[in-house]
Amino acid sequence: MNPVIAIVGTGAVGAYYGGRLAQHGHDVHFLLRADYAAVKHNGWTIRSCDGDFTLPATAVHAYDDPAKMPKADLVIVTLKTTANDGFEPLIRPLLKEGTTILTLQNGLGNEERLAELFGAEKILGGMCFVCINRVEPGVVHHIAEGTITLGEFRPGATDRLQRVADMLRSSKIPARALPDLRYGRWEKLVWNIPFNGLSAVLDQTTDLLIGTPAGEALVRDIMEEVIAGARAVGVELPASLIKAKIDQTRGMGAYKTSMHLDMQAGRAMEIDAIFGFPVRVAQAAGTPVPRLEMLERLLRLRDATRGSSPA
Amino acid sequence: MNPVIAIVGTGAVGAYYGGRLAQHGHDVHFLLRADYAAVKHNGWTIRSCDGDFTLPATAVHAYDDPAKMPKADLVIVTLKTTANDGFEPLIRPLLKEGTTILTLQNGLGNEERLAELFGAEKILGGMCFVCINRVEPGVVHHIAEGTITLGEFRPGATDRLQRVADMLRSSKIPARALPDLRYGRWEKLVWNIPFNGLSAVLDQTTDLLIGTPAGEALVRDIMEEVIAGARAVGVELPASLIKAKIDQTRGMGAYKTSMHLDMQAGRAMEIDAIFGFPVRVAQAAGTPVPRLEMLERLLRLRDATRGSSPA
Repeated sequence: MNPVIAIVGTGAVGAYYGGRLAQHGHDVHFLLRADYAAVKHNGWTIRSCDGDFTLPATAVHAYDDPAKMPKADLVIVTLKTTANDGFEPLIRPLLKEGTTILTLQNGLGNEERLAELFGAEKILGGMCFVCINRVEPGVVHHIAEGTITLGEFRPGATDRLQRVADMLRSSKIPARALPDLRYGRWEKLVWNIPFNGLSAVLDQTTDLLIGTPAGEALVRDIMEEVIAGARAVGVELPASLIKAKIDQTRGMGAYKTSMHLDMQAGRAMEIDAIFGFPVRVAQAAGTPVPRLEMLERLLRLRDATRGSSPA
Repeated sequence: MNPVIAIVGTGAVGAYYGGRLAQHGHDVHFLLRADYAAVKHNGWTIRSCDGDFTLPATAVHAYDDPAKMPKADLVIVTLKTTANDGFEPLIRPLLKEGTTILTLQNGLGNEERLAELFGAEKILGGMCFVCINRVEPGVVHHIAEGTITLGEFRPGATDRLQRVADMLRSSKIPARALPDLRYGRWEKLVWNIPFNGLSAVLDQTTDLLIGTPAGEALVRDIMEEVIAGARAVGVELPASLIKAKIDQTRGMGAYKTSMHLDMQAGRAMEIDAIFGFPVRVAQAAGTPVPRLEMLERLLRLRDATRGSSPA
C-alpha cells in the first residue's frame, strides 16, 4: 500500500522534496497558501541541478485547507518557524493512528513543540542541506546540494527512521539517518548562528563577514559559544568544525543567508528557532552565551522596527 | 596680555567655540584643513540659537599649517578621535612653556595620549553638550545646547581650570568646571555607548532604538554595563542616570548620532574612543563588559567593510 504523504507549508523546500517524492510515484498531498492557485492550474515546475522535471496540474494533489486532505501516514513539515503557531490547526486534521511527523524546519524547538502537541513518539526531525529558491508561484529552482539528515526525536535508531530515509533515497533525495538528531541540529547552528545573525544585523553577505581578520575572529568566537552551548546540553561537537565551516563558507562567495534575505524583504526572521531556543537551553544548563544573547537582542530590535524605512 | 588661543581640528565644534571666543575679543588662531580656502576668503558665518554672528575674513586668523601659527597659551583640540595620530605633528609646533591643552573630543583615551606626548600637567579635558552642524565650508549651524564641562586631567580643581571656564563663560559659552573629569567622561559614555553603537550597527535613529520594550531593555542593559565599567575604575555613577538619559532621548525624536552619520557617509567611526578604550580599561580592572565588547566588534566589522556597497 502506498503511504499517504502530506507536505505542510509548501515553500521552496516542501515543493522540491514533495515534488521529487511525487515524481517517483509516491502519493503526495500539498497544503498550499501563496502558491495554491498557480499549482492548481499549472502544477509544479522544478528546475534542478539533479535534473529538471514538471508535475502537471492533473497529477498534483493541491489543497488550501487541511480539512480537505486525506489522513496521512507521513506529514512533512516545511513551515517557516515563525508560523509554528499554525501547528495545531494545520497538522491535527491530518493525523491518524501511527502517523509520523517529520519536521525539516530550521533551528531548535520545533520537535519539542510538535511532541508536546501530538506526542513524542510521532516525531522525526531533519536538516536539509540544500540551496533552493522559489522563482515564482509554482516554479522552484534547486541550485545545489540536497541532502537530508534525519533522526528520531526520542534518541535512537528505529526501523521507521530507516524506512523514511530509504523512501527519500529511492526518490533521488540523498538521505542519512542520524543516531542523534540533536548532534545534527547543533552542528547546523554552528553555521547558522554566526552567519544568519551577523548578516541580518549588519546587512552584509557572508564573504564580507569573514573578509577581515577581525570579522573571522568574531565568527570563530561566536561558533565557540555555540559549541559551548551544545556541550552544556550534552552534545559534543569537535572544535575542528569551526575551521571546516569557515572554509566551506569561503567557497560560497557573496552568499545571502535566509535571515539576511528575510530582513531585506521585511519578512519575519526565524529568531526564536535559530537564537531564542538555543540561548535559553544553554542558559538553563548554566552556560552563559553572551555573544549569542546580544545577537538575538539585536535581531529582535531589527525585527521590531521591520517595515520602518532605514534611518 | 591677551592669551593666544589655537583651535586644532576645526570642524563644527571648533568653529563655533573658536568663533564665540574671537567674537568676544580673544586672540584665536584656527588650524584648518577642509575649510581653509573658504574661511581665508569669507571668514566664518555662524548661525546660532544663541544669536547669529559673522567674523569677516580680515578678522580671522586662518592657517593650513601649524608651523605658520604663533605659539599658543591655550590649545583647544577638536579633532575627530580617528585623527589622533595627528597629535604630534599638529600640536607640537604650537607649544611653549606653560601652554595648556584642552581636548573637547569624544570618549576616553584622548587626555591620556596627549599627556603621554606633551606632559600630564598641560592637559585639561572637556565635554561639549551641543547640537551643531557644519552646513558648508565656513558656515556652521548651532542648533541647541552648548555647555562645556571641563576638568583637569590630573584630578583636582586648579586656578587655571577656573580661568579657562571663566574665559568661556565671558564669551557666551556656558561652562562648568568639574572636580573629577573622569566622572564626566563616563557619564557621557552612558549615553554615547548604547546610542552611538546601536544606531551605527542597526542603521536606526534613536527613537526606533527605544521605541519598543525590547529595545529600551537592551539600551538599559548596555547602560548598566557602562556604569559597571565606570565603577571598576573607581567612578561611581548613580543608577538614576539610566532613566534620565532615556527620558532625555525621547525628547530628541528621530535623532541621528554622530556615529550613525559617519557610518551612513562611509566616514571613519570613533570606535576606539567610545568603545575600545572603555572596554579595555573595564576588562583590565576585572569587570567583563560582554555587550560593549560585542558592540565594539560589530562596529569594527561594519567599519572594515566601509565603502563596500550594502549587500
